[in-house]
Amino acid sequence: MNKEIIAVDLGGTQLRAARYDAGLNLLTREHTLTGADDGLEAVLARMKAIIRLVMPAEHDRVESIGISAPGPLNSKTGVIVSPPNLPGWHDVPLGAIIEAEFGLPAYIGNDANVAALAEASQGAAQGCRHVCYITVSTGIGSGIICDGMLVTGQAGLGSELGHIPIIVEAGRVSSIELEAAGPAIARQAKQALRTGANTGMLDLVAGELEQLDARAVGKAAANGDSLAIDLLAYAGRIIGLGIVTVLHLFNPQIIVIGGGVSKTGELLFAPIRQTVREHVLDSAFTAGLRIEAAALGDDVALVGAAALAATHGGDMDIRNLDRRF
Amino acid sequence: MNKEIIAVDLGGTQLRAARYDAGLNLLTREHTLTGADDGLEAVLARMKAIIRLVMPAEHDRVESIGISAPGPLNSKTGVIVSPPNLPGWHDVPLGAIIEAEFGLPAYIGNDANVAALAEASQGAAQGCRHVCYITVSTGIGSGIICDGMLVTGQAGLGSELGHIPIIVEAGRVSSIELEAAGPAIARQAKQALRTGANTGMLDLVAGELEQLDARAVGKAAANGDSLAIDLLAYAGRIIGLGIVTVLHLFNPQIIVIGGGVSKTGELLFAPIRQTVREHVLDSAFTAGLRIEAAALGDDVALVGAAALAATHGGDMDIRNLDRRF
Repeated sequence: MNKEIIAVDLGGTQLRAARYDAGLNLLTREHTLTGADDGLEAVLARMKAIIRLVMPAEHDRVESIGISAPGPLNSKTGVIVSPPNLPGWHDVPLGAIIEAEFGLPAYIGNDANVAALAEASQGAAQGCRHVCYITVSTGIGSGIICDGMLVTGQAGLGSELGHIPIIVEAGRVSSIELEAAGPAIARQAKQALRTGANTGMLDLVAGELEQLDARAVGKAAANGDSLAIDLLAYAGRIIGLGIVTVLHLFNPQIIVIGGGVSKTGELLFAPIRQTVREHVLDSAFTAGLRIEAAALGDDVALVGAAALAATHGGDMDIRNLDRRF
Repeated sequence: MNKEIIAVDLGGTQLRAARYDAGLNLLTREHTLTGADDGLEAVLARMKAIIRLVMPAEHDRVESIGISAPGPLNSKTGVIVSPPNLPGWHDVPLGAIIEAEFGLPAYIGNDANVAALAEASQGAAQGCRHVCYITVSTGIGSGIICDGMLVTGQAGLGSELGHIPIIVEAGRVSSIELEAAGPAIARQAKQALRTGANTGMLDLVAGELEQLDARAVGKAAANGDSLAIDLLAYAGRIIGLGIVTVLHLFNPQIIVIGGGVSKTGELLFAPIRQTVREHVLDSAFTAGLRIEAAALGDDVALVGAAALAATHGGDMDIRNLDRRF
């Protein structure tokens, strides 16, 4: 029996859908704009329509629908809580809506959890059973696979590595995201410029301080700007401490890092690796450990949504994915 | 078929063994001294002897042997690495030794992981599928159960909450254990006394500063000593931040806290709860969450070792324990 899976990637801007065979090979794909500004009902109508575009003539070839959506969401109930980039969405029972429309089981996962499943099934962590995926972008999200099972927790809220609390100076508690995500890097750059730092970074944004973002900092660092290099190194050290936490708690075999900020490459990865070496309890935790860039591109959310459906929302061992191939 | 389990608790001082029925009800129990100072071979001989004391006449009623041992150890291979309180033990393949002696599968777990299984099967977390157990004593250890499965990781090294790195002041990285375990509390008390703090704590140890330990600090705090209360509150805040990390990563339903320092009760638990409330990302992570004292006493390691064997070293869902009852 060759049961197919429909995958949907609901983003703030792009709406994608695809159909995969039982081995998670792509059969067909469509994309359109989300049209988030038109509100909830309009987006739901567009989502149903794009699912119909990838639906085969014989509906019963499809086993289930997997959906990657922006968090916060409850993966157990399929309810989207209130994503900042989907205006008008509050406690939307998306899973139930899609199930009722198509008469198929629907599984919903946040984008980082879904990306973890994607990297574990077809990306950098293929064949691994103990995986931590981290995305460093406008926020810092994560997905953890522990002995083949996606970690979601009692209410499906896990795992949020970006929100690990850290003390940054005597008594003041911040978080990994607030110190090391894209907006934090941009904020620190602006602050340094306002206090007269010697850097050519401002030229990259035509002198407009408010336009300075993490991408510009990354570009400046690649050009050898020492302030920009230091800012990425600080972000790397903070992310590295988060990884040490994950190593000590989960003892994974691979850390996969994706998201826009990770495109700065070794400028970020070298300080991450150094921090891990310096602060890990024992070399046993890093024996055989790989810290690698994400391997999948734009399709990561679609592949992950398909893997989510194939594992019944992460409740099944990813080993079952291999068995399907 | 009523398969029985033999449990062993190998401690630095005490050596215990017991036999349980399939429902983890105690059938017989023995205890003796470990005799750790007599060296490896002597301890192994004593362990084999005490196992024979609890072995039934018909050997084939026994399904397996579970052993709680001091870490660090590799639960996958059954090798004890080099516990500080077992002199002469270095990379001892305890699992293989016991299996060869008795012809039964042997499962080995570190004391905190085993305690987590015990609390989840018969203690404060009974019936829970998402559990974090923390022991605060001379060290800080932890055991995490994620959707019914013990988290051990690729080399069986998880989970070490005590070794989560934390920045305590600008740039200096410490750990939860180094800031909040018993020796840290004692160290901070001595430091305060040396710099002239106003406290009656010293009277509790007959004026001998070097004798001051976490137990004395706990006693002083119970008597209303404000420095001692502040020291426990600091430990509680640090442990609380570790719990916030666990909440954000695992989204558990219960945190169980045991170990000697936890006997200080609300003096430690109140600042823990307050820190969790203050620093959790969203109240969804604490909805329905319980933070409770461990319920099992001295037998926690024996019950846990039995649960470890019953779940095949934590590789089986704890739900299977319930099915055995």
